[in-house]
Amino acid sequence: SDELVIAGRSYGSRLLVGTGKFAAHEVMRDSLLASGAEIVTVALRRVDLDRAGEGDVLDFVPPGMTLLPNTSGAADAAEALRLARLGRAATGTGLVKLEVTPDPRTLAPDPIETLRAAELMVADGFTVLPYCSADPVLARRLEEAGCATVMPLGSWIGSNRGLRTRDAIEAIVAGAGVPVIVDAGLGVPSDAAEAMEIGAAAVLVNTAIAVAADPVRMARAFALATVAGRLGHLAGQAGTGTATAASASSPL
Amino acid sequence: SDELVIAGRSYGSRLLVGTGKFAAHEVMRDSLLASGAEIVTVALRRVDLDRAGEGDVLDFVPPGMTLLPNTSGAADAAEALRLARLGRAATGTGLVKLEVTPDPRTLAPDPIETLRAAELMVADGFTVLPYCSADPVLARRLEEAGCATVMPLGSWIGSNRGLRTRDAIEAIVAGAGVPVIVDAGLGVPSDAAEAMEIGAAAVLVNTAIAVAADPVRMARAFALATVAGRLGHLAGQAGTGTATAASASSPL
Amino acid sequence: SDELVIAGRSYGSRLLVGTGKFAAHEVMRDSLLASGAEIVTVALRRVDLDRAGEGDVLDFVPPGMTLLPNTSGAADAAEALRLARLGRAATGTGLVKLEVTPDPRTLAPDPIETLRAAELMVADGFTVLPYCSADPVLARRLEEAGCATVMPLGSWIGSNRGLRTRDAIEAIVAGAGVPVIVDAGLGVPSDAAEAMEIGAAAVLVNTAIAVAADPVRMARAFALATVAGRLGHLAGQAGTGTATAASASSPL
Amino acid sequence: SDELVIAGRSYGSRLLVGTGKFAAHEVMRDSLLASGAEIVTVALRRVDLDRAGEGDVLDFVPPGMTLLPNTSGAADAAEALRLARLGRAATGTGLVKLEVTPDPRTLAPDPIETLRAAELMVADGFTVLPYCSADPVLARRLEEAGCATVMPLGSWIGSNRGLRTRDAIEAIVAGAGVPVIVDAGLGVPSDAAEAMEIGAAAVLVNTAIAVAADPVRMARAFALATVAGRLGHLAGQAGTGTATAASASSPL
Repeated sequence: SDELVIAGRSYGSRLLVGTGKFAAHEVMRDSLLASGAEIVTVALRRVDLDRAGEGDVLDFVPPGMTLLPNTSGAADAAEALRLARLGRAATGTGLVKLEVTPDPRTLAPDPIETLRAAELMVADGFTVLPYCSADPVLARRLEEAGCATVMPLGSWIGSNRGLRTRDAIEAIVAGAGVPVIVDAGLGVPSDAAEAMEIGAAAVLVNTAIAVAADPVRMARAFALATVAGRLGHLAGQAGTGTATAASASSPL
Repeated sequence: SDELVIAGRSYGSRLLVGTGKFAAHEVMRDSLLASGAEIVTVALRRVDLDRAGEGDVLDFVPPGMTLLPNTSGAADAAEALRLARLGRAATGTGLVKLEVTPDPRTLAPDPIETLRAAELMVADGFTVLPYCSADPVLARRLEEAGCATVMPLGSWIGSNRGLRTRDAIEAIVAGAGVPVIVDAGLGVPSDAAEAMEIGAAAVLVNTAIAVAADPVRMARAFALATVAGRLGHLAGQAGTGTATAASASSPL
Repeated sequence: SDELVIAGRSYGSRLLVGTGKFAAHEVMRDSLLASGAEIVTVALRRVDLDRAGEGDVLDFVPPGMTLLPNTSGAADAAEALRLARLGRAATGTGLVKLEVTPDPRTLAPDPIETLRAAELMVADGFTVLPYCSADPVLARRLEEAGCATVMPLGSWIGSNRGLRTRDAIEAIVAGAGVPVIVDAGLGVPSDAAEAMEIGAAAVLVNTAIAVAADPVRMARAFALATVAGRLGHLAGQAGTGTATAASASSPL
Repeated sequence: SDELVIAGRSYGSRLLVGTGKFAAHEVMRDSLLASGAEIVTVALRRVDLDRAGEGDVLDFVPPGMTLLPNTSGAADAAEALRLARLGRAATGTGLVKLEVTPDPRTLAPDPIETLRAAELMVADGFTVLPYCSADPVLARRLEEAGCATVMPLGSWIGSNRGLRTRDAIEAIVAGAGVPVIVDAGLGVPSDAAEAMEIGAAAVLVNTAIAVAADPVRMARAFALATVAGRLGHLAGQAGTGTATAASASSPL
C-alpha cells in the first residue's frame, strides 16, 4: 500500500537499477533479480535497435520489468530527442530517462538543455524522467514542464561518493509534487537508505552494484537498504541531540 | 551461515536492541519482535530483582531472546561489579553489558574504570561486553582483558547523531579479534547500515527506535538496514571516485 | 603579486563583503573596514537611486571600495536587467552582481533565468558576476556567455551552513577560466578558508559577519581566514591518510 | 590581552608547531619563524642529549621559542617517564609533551598508560601536556591528575584527515578547566580554524606544514587560520539555518 507511483502506474519497489558496467550479461540479469527492481534503465546506445544482433542487453532483462530507456551520451536536447524517438520505435515504450551530459569530466547534466529536451519530449508524448542537477529551482521547472519525476544527482555518475547534495535534495523534496528519485553517485547501501530517509521517493543505482566484488549480493543489499530508509522515513525519526549532550536510554 | 558469534554462541541477527525510553511496555515488546533482535539489553536498575512486583520490564521481553543485563548508571568499577552480581543472581545469566559512565553530560564511558571493571568481571566468571570510547588502544586492552566483544560508541548515548567516530571504528575493526558492536548514538537506519559496511559485527540501537513516532516500524527499518549494511560489507564495495571525476555507467 | 583579477582590474583582497542585515550603518562601515574588503555588494533595492534621501547605505561604504550593485529580489531576467540599468544610472558602475532567486524558501538561483539575464546584461555592456547554483555545466555556460566571474553557492543564502557543495565547487574550479567566487552560506571563518583551499579565487560573506555578536571582530576573522586558505592553496597541501593509518611526525 | 596561559605562563600565539618530517633543518627553522609559534615540540629521541654532535635539531629552533620536549615513541608509562627525565636533564625544562602510543598503525595514545605516566610525571615535578584520545572522561581525569593542558587528537598523527573528533572536542572544551590543545591530524588551515572556532585554546601542527610543497608558506597559512578561528570564536558566530530554509541578506 506504500507504492511508488510514476505517471499513474504503481510500483512496489523503490529501487531502480541500471544495466551498465556489469562484467557479463548473466551477472546483470541475476543482479536485477536480486535487486527486486521493477524499473530498469538501459542506454539506448546499447540497445540493438533493429533487434537483429545477438546477445542484446535487453535479452537479459528479466521479463516483467519496466524498461526505462535512457539518452546517455546525448550532448544536447536535439540529440536526446532523436535518441528517445529511436528508442520508442524500437522498444514500444514512451518512458524515457532524459540525460544530457556534455561535460566529459563530471558527466553533470546540462540544466539548460535538459529543460529544453524535457519540453520537447513532453510535447512529443513521452513520459519524461530527467536526470538533473540537485537544484531546487530547476527541479521545479522540470516538474512544471510536465516531467513525471525529477532525478537529481547524489554525486557524479559512477563516483560512488554518496549523497553529497543532501541539503539540495531536502529542498527539492520539500517543494516537489512529483516523485524525487536520487540518481547517480550512491556508492553503498547506507547512501540509498539516507536518501530515502530524507524523503526521496526512490533511488537509482548502477555502478555501485555492477562493480562490486559480488554484484548479486550488493543488489540485495541495496534492495534492503532502500526499504529500510523508506520505513525509517515513514516511522518518523526522532530529533538529534547536540554535540555535548547525551540522553540516557537506561535509568541512571 | 553468516552468524554473529559471541562467546561461542551464534546469533542470526546482528541488531541488538535496548529496552529503555519506550512509551509503554507493549510498544517495547512489539518493537523487539519487529526488530528481529536475539539479544536484548536491559538496565539492571530497571529489573525488579526480586521479581516480586508487577509489570516488570522482563515480562515484556519476548521469550527466546537472550537477555543482556547492563550496568547503566554505574559511576565506577565497584558499582558496576556489584550491579552485575545482583543481576546474575536474579536473571541467571553471566552475560553483562558493562557500562561505567560517570559524566552526566555526555554519558561517555570512563576508560579507566571500564577496563578495571572488565578485569574484575572476567575474573569473576562473567561474559563481558563493554561499552567503551571509540579508542583503538582501549579496545585492544579490553579484548586482552578477556572481553567477549568491544562496544565502541558511535556518538553520545541517546543523541541520535550517528556514526561520528567512523575513523576510530575502522581502526578498531582492523585490529580486533572479537566482534565490534557499535553502541550508542545511531539515529537513523542508514547509520546502522554504515556501521556494518565498515566492518562492525553488529550494532545496538535503543533511543532511535524507542522515541520514533512509530517505534515498531522503526525497529523493522533498523533490522533491514543492519542486514543491508552487512551484505554491503560482504559484497565488497567498489572504490570511490574523486570530487571532480565521473565514470559513465552507460556508454557515451 | 597574488592578486584577484576581475574584468582586468586587480584587487589585493579576496574577501568580498555584503551590506545587508547589519544592525546599524555604523557597524556595517566598521565591519567593512575590518574586513579589508575592496569589493562591497549592495542591493539595488536598498540604494536610494535618486540619492535624495538621508542615511543611504552608500554613504556608509568607506571611500575607495569598489561598489558591486546586486539585483537581489529579482524573480526573472527582465527584472534583473531593469534593476541593473537603474543601478548603473544611479551609481555609474557597470559592474553587477546578478541574482535571480524566485524560490522564497531557499533563495536558490534560477539557472535558466540567470543565464538569460547574463546574456542580456553582457550584450548591454555590463560586467556580470552571476550568483549561481554549484553546477559545473551552468558555470561553464555563464563563462561562455561572457561573465567576468562565476559565483556558485556554498549553501543557501543566510543559512550559515558552510561549504555544502564542495565537490561541485572543486569541479567548477577545475573547469573555469574566470575567477570562481563562492557566494552564500559560508558561516564561520573556517568555511571561507576551506573554499579558498580547494581553489576558489575569492569568497563573498555577508550574514555570518552581519549577525555575529561582534561583527567587526568577525569581519577581521574572515579576512584572515580568507588569506590563510589562499596561502594554504598556494602552499600545496599534502595528501590525506586513510582512516586507519597514521604517520609518525616524530621518530619512534 | 587574549593570551594563552599554560602553567602560569602567557603566550601570544595559539599555534604550536612540531619539528618532525621537515626536509631540512633550515626549512624547519624558516617554517617555525613563519608560523609565529612560541612553543615548539621536539622528540626527545631526536635530541642529541649530550649536545656533543653536530647539526642537532635544537640548533635550528629560533632563540626565544619555548621548547616542549615530547616522549614520542614511548610504549608505556615507564618509558615515557625515563625519556622525560633524560630530556629534563639535557634541556633544563620541566615541560613535557607526554605521548604514549603503543599502536603502530594509528599511533593512537594509550589512555591507561598516559594517565599513569601523567600521574608519575606530575609527582616528579613536570609540567605535563598529554597527547590523548578525544575522550571527555579521560580528559577530565588528566586534568584532575594535575596536567597543565589536555591535547586530544583531531585525527591520527600525520594523517592530515582533519577534525574527525569534533563532537568529542566540543564536549572536552565544555568540561575543561585547563587549555584544550587539539593535537594531531589537522591537515589544512581550515582544520585549525575550525578547532579554534569550537573553543580549542590552541592547536599543534606538524605534518601538514612539514610535508607541504612550500612549508614556510603553509606555516604562515596555519598561523593566520589559528588567529582567524580564535577571533571567530570570540566574535560569537550566528546560528545555522536548516537544510531547506534561506534568509535573505539583501531585501527582496
